[in-house]
Amino acid sequence: MAKHDFNKESLELHKKHKGKIEVVSKIEVHTTDDLSRVYSPGVAAPCLAIADDVTLAHDLTIKGNTIAVVSDGTAVLGLGNIGPEAAIPVMEGKAMLFKKFANVNAFPICLNTTVASEIIETVKMIAPVFGGINLEDISAPRSFEVETALQDIGIPVFHDDQHGTAIVALAGILNSCKVLGKDLSDLKIIINGAGAAGIAISRLLRCISIDPNVCIPVKQVLVCDSKGIIHKNRTNLNPVKIELLNYSNPENVEGTLKDAIKGADVFIGVSVANVLTAEDIETMAENPVIFALANPNPEIMPEEALKGGAAIIATGRSDYPNQVNNVLAFPGIFRGALDCRAKRITPKMKIAAAYAIADCVMQPDREHIIPKSLNKEIASKVADAVKQAYKNYDK
Amino acid sequence: MAKHDFNKESLELHKKHKGKIEVVSKIEVHTTDDLSRVYSPGVAAPCLAIADDVTLAHDLTIKGNTIAVVSDGTAVLGLGNIGPEAAIPVMEGKAMLFKKFANVNAFPICLNTTVASEIIETVKMIAPVFGGINLEDISAPRSFEVETALQDIGIPVFHDDQHGTAIVALAGILNSCKVLGKDLSDLKIIINGAGAAGIAISRLLRCISIDPNVCIPVKQVLVCDSKGIIHKNRTNLNPVKIELLNYSNPENVEGTLKDAIKGADVFIGVSVANVLTAEDIETMAENPVIFALANPNPEIMPEEALKGGAAIIATGRSDYPNQVNNVLAFPGIFRGALDCRAKRITPKMKIAAAYAIADCVMQPDREHIIPKSLNKEIASKVADAVKQAYKNYDK
Repeated sequence: MAKHDFNKESLELHKKHKGKIEVVSKIEVHTTDDLSRVYSPGVAAPCLAIADDVTLAHDLTIKGNTIAVVSDGTAVLGLGNIGPEAAIPVMEGKAMLFKKFANVNAFPICLNTTVASEIIETVKMIAPVFGGINLEDISAPRSFEVETALQDIGIPVFHDDQHGTAIVALAGILNSCKVLGKDLSDLKIIINGAGAAGIAISRLLRCISIDPNVCIPVKQVLVCDSKGIIHKNRTNLNPVKIELLNYSNPENVEGTLKDAIKGADVFIGVSVANVLTAEDIETMAENPVIFALANPNPEIMPEEALKGGAAIIATGRSDYPNQVNNVLAFPGIFRGALDCRAKRITPKMKIAAAYAIADCVMQPDREHIIPKSLNKEIASKVADAVKQAYKNYDK
Repeated sequence: MAKHDFNKESLELHKKHKGKIEVVSKIEVHTTDDLSRVYSPGVAAPCLAIADDVTLAHDLTIKGNTIAVVSDGTAVLGLGNIGPEAAIPVMEGKAMLFKKFANVNAFPICLNTTVASEIIETVKMIAPVFGGINLEDISAPRSFEVETALQDIGIPVFHDDQHGTAIVALAGILNSCKVLGKDLSDLKIIINGAGAAGIAISRLLRCISIDPNVCIPVKQVLVCDSKGIIHKNRTNLNPVKIELLNYSNPENVEGTLKDAIKGADVFIGVSVANVLTAEDIETMAENPVIFALANPNPEIMPEEALKGGAAIIATGRSDYPNQVNNVLAFPGIFRGALDCRAKRITPKMKIAAAYAIADCVMQPDREHIIPKSLNKEIASKVADAVKQAYKNYDK
């Protein structure tokens, strides 16, 4: 069915171009006078101005519009731990998307370590030239530790695998509610996967309602990992899963994923393929919403989910309706954060981004709850919402 | 006399452009198929190819043509220790020159530390995405420690303040010998300044002759620091200055700079302004060569040196003949090193670069011992010489 062998075409493309991004000059240098302005001796003036007031680095250098895409190569796409060099093509691709959608300069930094403390130290060391840090494809639970430890370094540090996916999924849930006439705070939501995205979605659902200015937690959130529902009586939960119990599973339900989804309104899969059948969907509440986001093979194929009575289906794939693609979130998030010189990206800014993405669909229906990934207007709307949220709540 | 106020013009330029470089895509992305080739899912193919053979990162990513310009902001231009943010304008300027003269992508990495061990660790951590590291404006003697510790990380690490200046100065000395009919190995050379450039020049002079394939040390090299000639009886010499005694001052001469230059053929100043007078030049050997490289104010103004009988005068300035500008060296050095995937930049490669730069002056005379800084042909000739030297001697 596929017209393209994207793997083969991609390898050819990478061989031909030897890197998909480049660092170029914005200013022509033809004469020694030109050189005296961009470099020695004239460059002493901006240097001294920044030495006198370090915040001027945002105005006089690339810092104000440049982020690092930082990875240790441990959780790359669906490929797993392939190492820092093998992660470079993904990070370059990400840098292209930052530029294309939000005119943000992004540079890949792939790290020669998988030790959380060393990742943290390295990011602190290289921070001066960057206006933000996008953490990428760092495996859980180290990614939580790394992101948390870097929240106070004065520039926003954002783990896209957590929040990018969470924000776009949330946008889809907001529009699903509109389409199906459900009330967000009444939902029973099952999340399968307690990694980066699963945890981040759970955290955002703590505080959400149709009015972005009112905080109402979703009625019931159950999170499952490979051993079933996460509950208080489980042993060997990592610290992040223990924290999760503060805002999920309030009735301490035990059981498997299949137990969990009985009567549920929304299933969000952010883990592995083929964990649900049409029969499982039949056990859910009326008009169930299925976000089967495992890539490339979803938790249940859309055709199968429809058989089971799914009202709305979203996947991570571009060949089905309702693609949850975090390119809808990260360019605008960083554009907004850089523009308002946010020191961090707060939950309010993330929720504002989700509402902005949802609002980009003018007339949502079952096959249109999420805007198209290549829509270039999204990022500026997200950026505006993020700036507004920072201004209103977080300064 | 100056037509331009370069400081003022430079500040305006930096305010206007908010950064002199940018990170751009080399490939257009218009459709979801385009996206599937440069990013998910197709990007899995180059990722897996590199995971299988890490050397393919040079062919399939920016690594093969990208270096980091790494500084801690402690010895920026003549400005001293101004901090990492204030150093960014210089590092961006450097990146522009790498692109302009050698089509090398260079990205500024300004570090939030001045501790040598932390600089070393950070460079090791970020090495995977880079094909080389240009250390810049890190003060001595830490710069020696940092560069030495990073020689075995598998990509070339080159401290430009040492070697860039040393290589171009050496090129000038080679051509001075041609013009004045002197024999390189017979020279008495005085170096004033035992920092980055002074040490690097001394090291290169250990092994040099008119035939680049023959190693003959210069007859007599004396190095002076602020306390005079460096000799064995001095106490409190740092380890780099102690090492220097292995290949300088074999007769253990004591005294001041003014004592040292008596009868000298060549003076190379890489320290502070106004240390010599016309009378001092008169005490030198016949047809003395003066490299007064302190910036912006040289050790002796050219007019004054001429009064004292200087035969050839070079400075760091663009408004006098014979400008020693390391832009003649670093772009071609890294172009060559990247092209042959050198694991380090060896002394032979540096000496080959000096000969290549000298040879770019077809008919040297007293006012033309060094090629013009903006000559775009130099870098490719330097690159060829560097590749040849690596191939012949160092693999």
